Amino acid sequence: MLKDLTRLIGSDHVQTGVEVADMSGLSGTASALVRPGSAQEAAAVVAWCYEHDVAIVPVGGRSGLAGGCVPEGEAVCVDLERLDAIRSFEPRLWRMEAEAGVKTATLARTVRASGLFYPPDPGAPELSNLGGNIACNAGGPHTFKYGTTSAWVTGLEVVLAPGELVRFGGPVRKDVAGYDLRGLMIGSEGTLGLVTAAWLKLMPAPAAQIPVAGVFANVADGIHAIEQVLASGVVPAALEYLDGATLGIAGDGFPGVIGDRAALLVVAEAESQADADELAHALGPRAQRPDPEALWSWRQSVGLIAAGVQGEKLSEDIVVPLDRLGEAIGAVIEIGARHGLKTCSWGHAGDGNIHATFMHERGKPPAAEIVQELFDLALRLGGTITGEHGIGILKRGQLSAQWSPAAIAAHEAVKRALDPKGLFNPGKKQA
Amino acid sequence: MLKDLTRLIGSDHVQTGVEVADMSGLSGTASALVRPGSAQEAAAVVAWCYEHDVAIVPVGGRSGLAGGCVPEGEAVCVDLERLDAIRSFEPRLWRMEAEAGVKTATLARTVRASGLFYPPDPGAPELSNLGGNIACNAGGPHTFKYGTTSAWVTGLEVVLAPGELVRFGGPVRKDVAGYDLRGLMIGSEGTLGLVTAAWLKLMPAPAAQIPVAGVFANVADGIHAIEQVLASGVVPAALEYLDGATLGIAGDGFPGVIGDRAALLVVAEAESQADADELAHALGPRAQRPDPEALWSWRQSVGLIAAGVQGEKLSEDIVVPLDRLGEAIGAVIEIGARHGLKTCSWGHAGDGNIHATFMHERGKPPAAEIVQELFDLALRLGGTITGEHGIGILKRGQLSAQWSPAAIAAHEAVKRALDPKGLFNPGKKQA
Repeated sequence: MLKDLTRLIGSDHVQTGVEVADMSGLSGTASALVRPGSAQEAAAVVAWCYEHDVAIVPVGGRSGLAGGCVPEGEAVCVDLERLDAIRSFEPRLWRMEAEAGVKTATLARTVRASGLFYPPDPGAPELSNLGGNIACNAGGPHTFKYGTTSAWVTGLEVVLAPGELVRFGGPVRKDVAGYDLRGLMIGSEGTLGLVTAAWLKLMPAPAAQIPVAGVFANVADGIHAIEQVLASGVVPAALEYLDGATLGIAGDGFPGVIGDRAALLVVAEAESQADADELAHALGPRAQRPDPEALWSWRQSVGLIAAGVQGEKLSEDIVVPLDRLGEAIGAVIEIGARHGLKTCSWGHAGDGNIHATFMHERGKPPAAEIVQELFDLALRLGGTITGEHGIGILKRGQLSAQWSPAAIAAHEAVKRALDPKGLFNPGKKQA
Repeated sequence: MLKDLTRLIGSDHVQTGVEVADMSGLSGTASALVRPGSAQEAAAVVAWCYEHDVAIVPVGGRSGLAGGCVPEGEAVCVDLERLDAIRSFEPRLWRMEAEAGVKTATLARTVRASGLFYPPDPGAPELSNLGGNIACNAGGPHTFKYGTTSAWVTGLEVVLAPGELVRFGGPVRKDVAGYDLRGLMIGSEGTLGLVTAAWLKLMPAPAAQIPVAGVFANVADGIHAIEQVLASGVVPAALEYLDGATLGIAGDGFPGVIGDRAALLVVAEAESQADADELAHALGPRAQRPDPEALWSWRQSVGLIAAGVQGEKLSEDIVVPLDRLGEAIGAVIEIGARHGLKTCSWGHAGDGNIHATFMHERGKPPAAEIVQELFDLALRLGGTITGEHGIGILKRGQLSAQWSPAAIAAHEAVKRALDPKGLFNPGKKQA
């Protein structure tokens, strides 16, 4: 294997017996970790693996939260970090062609420097890359108004079994000629093919980013305020919440006033002063306007702060229909309390997307029943077990509780159709 | 067949030997045309067909332009017009669950009456229904800012082979648990399953609709104005064009001033007065602000007017990258001229989506070479053969020129995986 892979992409870019981990805490040993320098080299690696029945595990920025890039058993891990070219960027046409290894933060900065905006903004942007964003159909706070990664990818270059470099879509903004295999690849966690590059559409940067925040003494009042935001006629760019327990841990860093009896902080972001006034009206007389940069920087730090409380944390990302959000926020706390764990949640309120977080000591992860209770909650409320992180290894088998047997059969038939040998990221995204 | 189908859904809703046509001019005879009264009845019909190896052709509002609902050979046509219930509508939560037979116009009106907006706005809204919109991933002028049907469908209820009623997604706004089979179904023209209902997300109606129009004496000036619109910092809700030949036929109805030497009319729609001012600046000193209702009503009539010039028309819907739009507009006219046909085009400029239109006498359709030249043009410019209408019967086989053999193989593998007997709308969406 080593000899063949070295011949394909050079000895500098092939390592053996490398540990690969992501931010889920899961890790595994790659039989080989390879770093192809071009899409053609990536295709050659896949072709070799497919011929020799060796598993292919795509590796992005290793910031995943479900073990999606972690190898199990014999596998060639394909790290796409060298595929980091922005192949073309045409600001006046609102479009870009970028390789899978371009960092999310690099992409955002490049686009911003030309007055444009690429809305998906998942956590850990300095670590994650475009390929990983595509593998997970990454979201983030601004997904509420602007949609997830799939809404901004007009085309993909991808290596399919048994090693064929193809493209679905391209720099056109509309295309219904073939099945939406572009969309099928997005969110498939590298189990249907290896994405090497993408065509993105962009938009002009909003004229302003004006977060408006409200602090509420109980969850019901906060949920009512969220309903008022939806009734305001404004589509907020983001609509976030943090619960009282989160504020208890991390509230000090909030660039505004939290007070003593905060059960819910709601943040809605406007893109004009007029809209900010509407949102402030919806959030009540004590609505605050925190500094946007300080607000989002604090918001991004909350996960790390929660992890620091006891050493580690487990964060899951269920989604519930919006009318069940208040119920879900309360139920998360109850689940943690039943198991004697410090628990909190925050997330993308407008999307019903909850980051339920259980804090624990290093090396003492919570019992599997806790996560199971959380997933049961999501399904009981008519939601989904994952809105952003994906299935990976952590949630393996859980889709079977969410989808009917016939839907699962379709899921598995698609996998077999595109990966007949089952070599693309085996064991991931598995029902 | 008749006896069995009658037993399943009642004799009032089964007809034999019925002619089924759409707006492409194609037609065919259905062995039986059935009108199920529920999703369960639709599933029972599919199960019967799948067991008896009979083709299933979904029929929507018959306003398609590619023959997608036209049967070929023995087939049961499943007309979904009785599935016209809005199962739930929760304006405060910006969501709706609607059956496939709900008319596009009914949907739009219902939503508007509650101050909300469902952006996809394909032509013929009084005829087309939600199921047909989903089958084609319908677009329309407002797709430029808001995306196609797929961006607004959060879940689907669909009958899969061999007659299983399943759902992918639901009333949640984010879900990455399974493969995006929701998205895969959208735009698949009924060849992978029969959509019976959908969950939609909605948004507040924009505060204003202010179209701003510019008339240009040559195409290059008009294209330059479109570039200025993109550089303005405003995302227009729609960005349309009509060429000089279209204005020659239909310009009289434009609610504004066209003048004598118009080569291109550009319409950009703002959603606030401030944005309208920016767009007017981009479109130049003589920019006009036509009445929105009159403007869109006229815009929708253009196709019918073009059809009336010589009796019939052939309209195709290629898409090119935005920077090739001017070239494509000129080339369409040249293709028509070479074949001695009156020719014009209009379309969704911002999306590079051109409705190339060749006028002809009744029963004397243009030679196949004309369409072939048009498709060759789209591909030569790096575009797609269809942005809205789909493949249907009309463009059968054309995908093979656009996609590589390995991409086509993936397309066909997905079809076989979900429809192993090849009974869902056979011959459509075929490479």
